[in-house]
Amino acid sequence: MTGPPPGPPPGPPLEAPTFAAIEAAAARLDGWAVKTPLLTAPALDRKLGGRILLKAETLQRTGSFKFRGAFNRISQIPEAERAAGVVAYSSGNHAQGVAAAAALLGAPATIVMPKDAPAMKVANTRAYGAEVVFYDRATENREEIGAALTAERGATLVRPYDDAGVIAGQGTCGLEIAQQAAALGLEIDALLVCCGGGGFTAGCALAMAGLSPETRVYTVEPIGFDDTRRALEKGVRVANDPAARSFCDALLAPTPGELTFPINRALLAGGLAVSDEEVRAAMSYAFRTLKLVVEPGGAVALAALLAGRLETRGKTVALTLSGGNVDPETYGEMLAAEGSAPA
Amino acid sequence: MTGPPPGPPPGPPLEAPTFAAIEAAAARLDGWAVKTPLLTAPALDRKLGGRILLKAETLQRTGSFKFRGAFNRISQIPEAERAAGVVAYSSGNHAQGVAAAAALLGAPATIVMPKDAPAMKVANTRAYGAEVVFYDRATENREEIGAALTAERGATLVRPYDDAGVIAGQGTCGLEIAQQAAALGLEIDALLVCCGGGGFTAGCALAMAGLSPETRVYTVEPIGFDDTRRALEKGVRVANDPAARSFCDALLAPTPGELTFPINRALLAGGLAVSDEEVRAAMSYAFRTLKLVVEPGGAVALAALLAGRLETRGKTVALTLSGGNVDPETYGEMLAAEGSAPA
Repeated sequence: MTGPPPGPPPGPPLEAPTFAAIEAAAARLDGWAVKTPLLTAPALDRKLGGRILLKAETLQRTGSFKFRGAFNRISQIPEAERAAGVVAYSSGNHAQGVAAAAALLGAPATIVMPKDAPAMKVANTRAYGAEVVFYDRATENREEIGAALTAERGATLVRPYDDAGVIAGQGTCGLEIAQQAAALGLEIDALLVCCGGGGFTAGCALAMAGLSPETRVYTVEPIGFDDTRRALEKGVRVANDPAARSFCDALLAPTPGELTFPINRALLAGGLAVSDEEVRAAMSYAFRTLKLVVEPGGAVALAALLAGRLETRGKTVALTLSGGNVDPETYGEMLAAEGSAPA
Repeated sequence: MTGPPPGPPPGPPLEAPTFAAIEAAAARLDGWAVKTPLLTAPALDRKLGGRILLKAETLQRTGSFKFRGAFNRISQIPEAERAAGVVAYSSGNHAQGVAAAAALLGAPATIVMPKDAPAMKVANTRAYGAEVVFYDRATENREEIGAALTAERGATLVRPYDDAGVIAGQGTCGLEIAQQAAALGLEIDALLVCCGGGGFTAGCALAMAGLSPETRVYTVEPIGFDDTRRALEKGVRVANDPAARSFCDALLAPTPGELTFPINRALLAGGLAVSDEEVRAAMSYAFRTLKLVVEPGGAVALAALLAGRLETRGKTVALTLSGGNVDPETYGEMLAAEGSAPA
């Protein structure tokens, strides 16, 4: 195997996926990804006065929707190139998705992860057989490390969201939401998607545009990392304050994606933002009432509804519970702290 | 309203339900109970070498299957009698099921609960609008308290398992398991059901006998409360040692039911038993890998598979995750203790 050409890292051009690409991704994922349930919870419906549909990607292979995009992307690497492996940078869920998909598809995987990634995400990534290379969020650039590794090994870079194959894969989740709601005889008024770089949202928005064009799609982000919300208002990409902090480790992208933002700008109704405190309340509600384990970044859409960010009365509102990879100790401490607090 | 006749507490005679009664119950529950998903988890399949189907009754209204039986039973009380209310005794899940079903059907509910019932179960029972009357497990008899309350108020006793309407309601879960597996194109080799008094098992076994007669149905109980396992071996009802202890608070029935045991003796392949330690491991696995909150009594069937009590290699095995009503503090402490333990 010869090395890659000099210049930008290898990978597909930044070409937007189509609805047909999402349908093709669904065919590729059939039998590999879990068709996660679209759950209903009477207690939540009563609380919010609407019909709430929960897309439980917590129950997806690797514990988040990221497996969808990774598998779709890696399955399209020509077999001859797969042996040189794949490289990805990720705080954790994309790492696990790429590691698991690469293992199933016979490609060695190297994952560049921040030193402060949740222990469970690092352990799981290694358990899928991937090599983990750490970097320091504050002083090092993960894109540069990923590009260097890719060049060195002749591997294929699997970007977390600025990649048509990845976006199309994530879009299969939106496809399922639309199909499962239709099977229940329901029309979805609004869909809330947990948003980091915007790939999951872009894929789901493309799917809804194809199957349920009346549905209004919103991003939900942590306050301080609500770059997509602000960018949608301004019409151009904006960056987050580098000093911003949130415990939603899966959603700390610095700016909307180059490829994802034009899609989201064209298709979304708007963006919502929630505080870490509202996310904690949503995680507690998920545990206590829904009996679901949801990680911080996976709970932002539920948090937005529980915090009253969108009118739900008389509406059918779907939302993603996008991941469940949270250290049990973290969840346990959070619940214990809340349990001992005054009601 | 005049009082009830003297003698045994009011309620339907101990007449076994039929498959047709389960189908009728399913029609009554339609739109009221959640059609809980039959989940698949590739990680679990890989671990056990078979195809494992998880019936997540944790996601049922009130957090356990008990809503099914309670709603089916109470909906059959003539409207004129409903106003006098219903009485139930329960350590928690039947309490919540009866309280929620009674509220939906316009019947006041009084629930006799042990003083040491989990705080969440007591709080939830009250939240559904029921009156809670406590008793001491060691010194008082809950049947006597229930009978006295029933007589005093002219109310209807809703027994936790020795009741044809309750068993038929629980059987709707088995009906769904068989239908959902068929929709996946799968034939279930074995079904493992979490077992206390045996009503859930009897209902599910009747459903499987009707729809999937080749499926071998097993009870799973905590060691020390494996009365049904031992009774199935001996062919007659036996009692547990009153000194036995288990943290599976939902499964502490002293003996198989009068009505449930003959059904289970006729239909079951056998009984399995698991230790509290094996249940803790299953709860941890549910949290960490399946991303599901499962209470001790709801995790025994999963525990039996993880502990290797039944051959799963090459088989399709369904199991019930029968409830998720566990105090977050309890789960948190358990996970924290395990997290700090050596690997």
